[in-house]
Amino acid sequence: MRLHMMTWLEVERHLGRETGIIIPIGSTEQHGPIGLIGTDAICPEVIADLAADERGHLVGPTISVGMAQHHLAFPGSVALRPTTLIAVICDYVNSLARNGFDRFYFLNGHGGNIATIGAAFSQIHAERSFARGTNQPPVRCKLANWFGFPEVREVATELYADRDGRHATASEVAVTQYACPDFIKQAPMDPAPPAPRAFQDAEDYRALFPDGRIEADSFLARPEHGERLARVSAACVAADFAAFLDQD
Amino acid sequence: MRLHMMTWLEVERHLGRETGIIIPIGSTEQHGPIGLIGTDAICPEVIADLAADERGHLVGPTISVGMAQHHLAFPGSVALRPTTLIAVICDYVNSLARNGFDRFYFLNGHGGNIATIGAAFSQIHAERSFARGTNQPPVRCKLANWFGFPEVREVATELYADRDGRHATASEVAVTQYACPDFIKQAPMDPAPPAPRAFQDAEDYRALFPDGRIEADSFLARPEHGERLARVSAACVAADFAAFLDQD
Amino acid sequence: MRLHMMTWLEVERHLGRETGIIIPIGSTEQHGPIGLIGTDAICPEVIADLAADERGHLVGPTISVGMAQHHLAFPGSVALRPTTLIAVICDYVNSLARNGFDRFYFLNGHGGNIATIGAAFSQIHAERSFARGTNQPPVRCKLANWFGFPEVREVATELYADRDGRHATASEVAVTQYACPDFIKQAPMDPAPPAPRAFQDAEDYRALFPDGRIEADSFLARPEHGERLARVSAACVAADFAAFLDQD
Amino acid sequence: MRLHMMTWLEVERHLGRETGIIIPIGSTEQHGPIGLIGTDAICPEVIADLAADERGHLVGPTISVGMAQHHLAFPGSVALRPTTLIAVICDYVNSLARNGFDRFYFLNGHGGNIATIGAAFSQIHAERSFARGTNQPPVRCKLANWFGFPEVREVATELYADRDGRHATASEVAVTQYACPDFIKQAPMDPAPPAPRAFQDAEDYRALFPDGRIEADSFLARPEHGERLARVSAACVAADFAAFLDQD
Amino acid sequence: MRLHMMTWLEVERHLGRETGIIIPIGSTEQHGPIGLIGTDAICPEVIADLAADERGHLVGPTISVGMAQHHLAFPGSVALRPTTLIAVICDYVNSLARNGFDRFYFLNGHGGNIATIGAAFSQIHAERSFARGTNQPPVRCKLANWFGFPEVREVATELYADRDGRHATASEVAVTQYACPDFIKQAPMDPAPPAPRAFQDAEDYRALFPDGRIEADSFLARPEHGERLARVSAACVAADFAAFLDQD
Amino acid sequence: MRLHMMTWLEVERHLGRETGIIIPIGSTEQHGPIGLIGTDAICPEVIADLAADERGHLVGPTISVGMAQHHLAFPGSVALRPTTLIAVICDYVNSLARNGFDRFYFLNGHGGNIATIGAAFSQIHAERSFARGTNQPPVRCKLANWFGFPEVREVATELYADRDGRHATASEVAVTQYACPDFIKQAPMDPAPPAPRAFQDAEDYRALFPDGRIEADSFLARPEHGERLARVSAACVAADFAAFLDQD
Repeated sequence: MRLHMMTWLEVERHLGRETGIIIPIGSTEQHGPIGLIGTDAICPEVIADLAADERGHLVGPTISVGMAQHHLAFPGSVALRPTTLIAVICDYVNSLARNGFDRFYFLNGHGGNIATIGAAFSQIHAERSFARGTNQPPVRCKLANWFGFPEVREVATELYADRDGRHATASEVAVTQYACPDFIKQAPMDPAPPAPRAFQDAEDYRALFPDGRIEADSFLARPEHGERLARVSAACVAADFAAFLDQD
Repeated sequence: MRLHMMTWLEVERHLGRETGIIIPIGSTEQHGPIGLIGTDAICPEVIADLAADERGHLVGPTISVGMAQHHLAFPGSVALRPTTLIAVICDYVNSLARNGFDRFYFLNGHGGNIATIGAAFSQIHAERSFARGTNQPPVRCKLANWFGFPEVREVATELYADRDGRHATASEVAVTQYACPDFIKQAPMDPAPPAPRAFQDAEDYRALFPDGRIEADSFLARPEHGERLARVSAACVAADFAAFLDQD
Repeated sequence: MRLHMMTWLEVERHLGRETGIIIPIGSTEQHGPIGLIGTDAICPEVIADLAADERGHLVGPTISVGMAQHHLAFPGSVALRPTTLIAVICDYVNSLARNGFDRFYFLNGHGGNIATIGAAFSQIHAERSFARGTNQPPVRCKLANWFGFPEVREVATELYADRDGRHATASEVAVTQYACPDFIKQAPMDPAPPAPRAFQDAEDYRALFPDGRIEADSFLARPEHGERLARVSAACVAADFAAFLDQD
Repeated sequence: MRLHMMTWLEVERHLGRETGIIIPIGSTEQHGPIGLIGTDAICPEVIADLAADERGHLVGPTISVGMAQHHLAFPGSVALRPTTLIAVICDYVNSLARNGFDRFYFLNGHGGNIATIGAAFSQIHAERSFARGTNQPPVRCKLANWFGFPEVREVATELYADRDGRHATASEVAVTQYACPDFIKQAPMDPAPPAPRAFQDAEDYRALFPDGRIEADSFLARPEHGERLARVSAACVAADFAAFLDQD
Repeated sequence: MRLHMMTWLEVERHLGRETGIIIPIGSTEQHGPIGLIGTDAICPEVIADLAADERGHLVGPTISVGMAQHHLAFPGSVALRPTTLIAVICDYVNSLARNGFDRFYFLNGHGGNIATIGAAFSQIHAERSFARGTNQPPVRCKLANWFGFPEVREVATELYADRDGRHATASEVAVTQYACPDFIKQAPMDPAPPAPRAFQDAEDYRALFPDGRIEADSFLARPEHGERLARVSAACVAADFAAFLDQD
Repeated sequence: MRLHMMTWLEVERHLGRETGIIIPIGSTEQHGPIGLIGTDAICPEVIADLAADERGHLVGPTISVGMAQHHLAFPGSVALRPTTLIAVICDYVNSLARNGFDRFYFLNGHGGNIATIGAAFSQIHAERSFARGTNQPPVRCKLANWFGFPEVREVATELYADRDGRHATASEVAVTQYACPDFIKQAPMDPAPPAPRAFQDAEDYRALFPDGRIEADSFLARPEHGERLARVSAACVAADFAAFLDQD
């Protein structure tokens, strides 16, 4: 159930039996010639819904803009500074901790977010350690990438072998095709060449990857692949979140 | 068209004819016994879509968490500190300004956000003034509240007279009923009493308004009211945004 | 009584019977050809003094620089970034709360400050909510604009009809003429034209309003008007502050 | 001339012949049984006026709250965090630099401010160095303490020998008696004992110095001493500021 | 050559032929019963020296405190908040970029730092993107972990099979024994049990890992292992840094 | 004993008898033609070691980069913004306070750091005052400059009369020659002229002091002077730190 679609009375009842929440986190950034700018937010959102609905878990509001400074030379990309995203994540956790939640599961759709989400968790814990004299109850935070479960990697490999790539991957494009069938795009595209080296800033990224993709043959994506990937990932998320809730 | 549903190539083409964007901004907070926690995000999002689709304007990713500290004693409410929201808005504007946008129209769904959005605009302009030596092109920002247009106020008064209220209003509940017909809630509720005084912090708010509403008879809401309100507001937004784009 | 003119022993005695304080807040910015740069600080300061002296209320140190980024293209204007003013207001409140005050009444002289003062109040409450485990007593904050009371608006309309204007108003210039009779200025000036549209940054403001005024015929101001406006506003402030202290 | 008492047209003319400004900076803090809470702001303000009026220099708006955390256990004391004061000073300088000033002379009334004002100057220069690519003109900043000139020390020693002290000094109390003759206070007081050691936080300060003074026999102050001290200091400030303006 | 051991004239000459620098970054945190608190700083420092001396590369000042909030329940551990470390790394890079460097190679000794260093690189690039109008030359940043090169992993596996562990590893203890032979410690210790789950805050860490180690049999460490590990790692660093300098 | 060379078990034992720590703090900045860039970090580090070893005091990790914005026009200089250094010092103190320390003695090697260290101490105390409701135990902080003790000044005067100077002093160069005998540099140098005036930003500093020194005849330095200066300073530090620990 999405938090946005509930009343506070329903949330209060929910907290009586479960104090954890799944929070999708993505990015708003170019995804090559046929990938949607919202890809990294759409994927964890649809997978979180699948995972949560079965057992009645709660899905919080998606953080839809993230670490995308390297895409800023492409129109439509939006980036938060890392210090901004850290503040956002701290505020989400501290707010919900204020009204009864204590386990926060961030389901991430963007590799570039991983570092800053980890930094945000340290910020939350450090600030609470420094103010130890208070009576704040402890919180627990966990990050999972929808695309990172071994079961998901396996399906991707079966579907695309080594052509899934690293940005604007066939996998993620497929999941958005499944989730948003009215927005399947077409554009001419060659197989992506190997990345010459790691990118740095926005100008550098665009010079290295002129159409936005990194090693990804996005054109291999099909909606039915997306459904399969999403369902496999959702099953992993459901199990992982249940284990997180059960942690002593 | 939602930015999230476009490719960067489509955005590039769009920028060739129009460099403005509508960005819905809401909140994640209790809205009384039958109001959805996502009300303030859902309303501007659906209205922005209606306003934009007619003439092909762009709608950026919704900022769905805002100024809700006073609701934190109700389960499910999430608040950003004002300094966090200022940073988020600055980053949205500075990012999109980096890749070609110059007019930013924030369509707001939460009265509590107005002050901080205004502060954010000043922050953006002040930082650019202090660094005057740079060659950054100027940006323009505008705030509009979907519920604030006189035409919308008129419909609300026709529908609810003086019972629309100030938080968890019948109007906003109606718009969510229209936008999310599968999530229409029922709960017992008396007519809301007059607010004894202005609220302060979260404890104070809950003590003053035990079921979350302020002077609002949310139970008067009907989906067909919501459709009417949304369409009237969307027409106002469309005209207002067009005027903003045409400003010299 | 101004806090600056008291000893700590006197303040300690005062706290025994009243724990609120009035804090004037203004701006340092151009006010057209004859308006003083200090207008927005001078007005709330003189009105706070009038309101406080009658009943022995306390007036804290004026915050004399505020939200003035849009005036920075005019010599002598000084602006705080919104994040700076938020920090200043938080520090005032947290300091005085540390030594016994709990009700903070900000008497404001600058329309441009309203948004950021509101944001600052949310910041104060949000930070305390996030650190709920502490034993800090709650604080209450209230904003009033000296020029915003209906009784004051009425006098201004009687005096200037629709020529009072929006920046460098005849009203505020008159109050400074009353407060600072040695600093009444003269300069040639035409009636102000209607504002073409809302301003954005400092360059934009100066281009739209070349002599600094917005729709204001400052030349209509007279010291005797100022006295009348100040006294009417002070009576409103006195009543409003008393009600704030009496709030349960 | 005080900036607050000028119009922008007058400031514009002033900038044609002189681009420096004197900015008084003080504190709002207890000053023992007879010292005013505003002492540290009143002294530099009155001395700046004396120094400036002779030669037509400009005096900017006083920063009246400063580094006073150690006084917070005494009612009426207000402190900025150092990071807040740094932000305030940066904003003053960057604002005025935006509209034509380039030499900033801070006349300080509070020993506790010295460190943070120095830090603020480094912050201003460091931020400009890091953004070297801009075309911002350089600024110069200087700090002077009204009580620190040798000529002033000499008078104080002549008047009070070694009883002037370190906080709530007879000198500063005398200057406020001269500046504010209607606010001369009386209270019983013994000669101050030697400070046992350096203070730390607010609790520690109050435990060490129960009536607020440090080694200061404030009761020796007389208004005529204050006038003499203020005039000597003003002459030093006038000469020092002139030299600062003349620097190549 | 360590930057600290050079004069500015020597650095100026060095910049004539090479504009990159290696900056060791570690942590100050408990490393179990026999691991030094400085382990994570000592290792990259000694390896950077080995790598740099051969070809005359420059080694900047070690950042010796890092992300250690989870160790704060153990005496002697020191943590920076992530936002602090981000500021430190930004300042290092922006400073050295100001005087001629453009390639920054951070050699890291602490797994917990990886996320925040990545966030810092994004912060540097994002701030420069947002201020695009400036003429700042671009910078490049790279992170390498001394323990992460496959060649190093191979030696560790040869020496300790699967007993090297995850915190207070035999490998890192061995490197410190080689680097600081006078500080080899002894303490009774059992083989470390498998980690029950991921840790959260400082209390949680200490409860899960009472002697501080995670899955690491630190007692297997020997100084001669350390020398071998350090030399292999240094060779990898030398090659990797050379490739980084040669990047087009 | 250096904290970095201890295990947490040893620190725990140490805390049983002494809860203070000496933290060296320096800078990374040019020191003229023969002064090492690390001079300001090396000096307090070697003196802290001498002072601590005699009586078994603890020496924490050196903060080796500080306030050096004015040196940034010389290659190899690195500066923290004051707000960054304040954050670093706060984090050191709050971390160690979390695990049992309560007296923090910063031994400083750089005059330019004095202001910002003082500001940092105020920040620590102010933040704790504002959050008074917590149960955090109080901390005490003290700053000492190795070169500032009268006994040290006396030796310097005996050795160099008035030629010791103000930056790249013969004294500090001598201490580094004693501490790092393998890194004694030679370069042609004239006696330093008197400083024409106080410096401002990095460009200004380099224009005023083209080889980096201020009034200092660094070439007078000899390693044996350095040993003498270091030993005298260490004795002063030992006595001063003991007194700090003994404070009630």
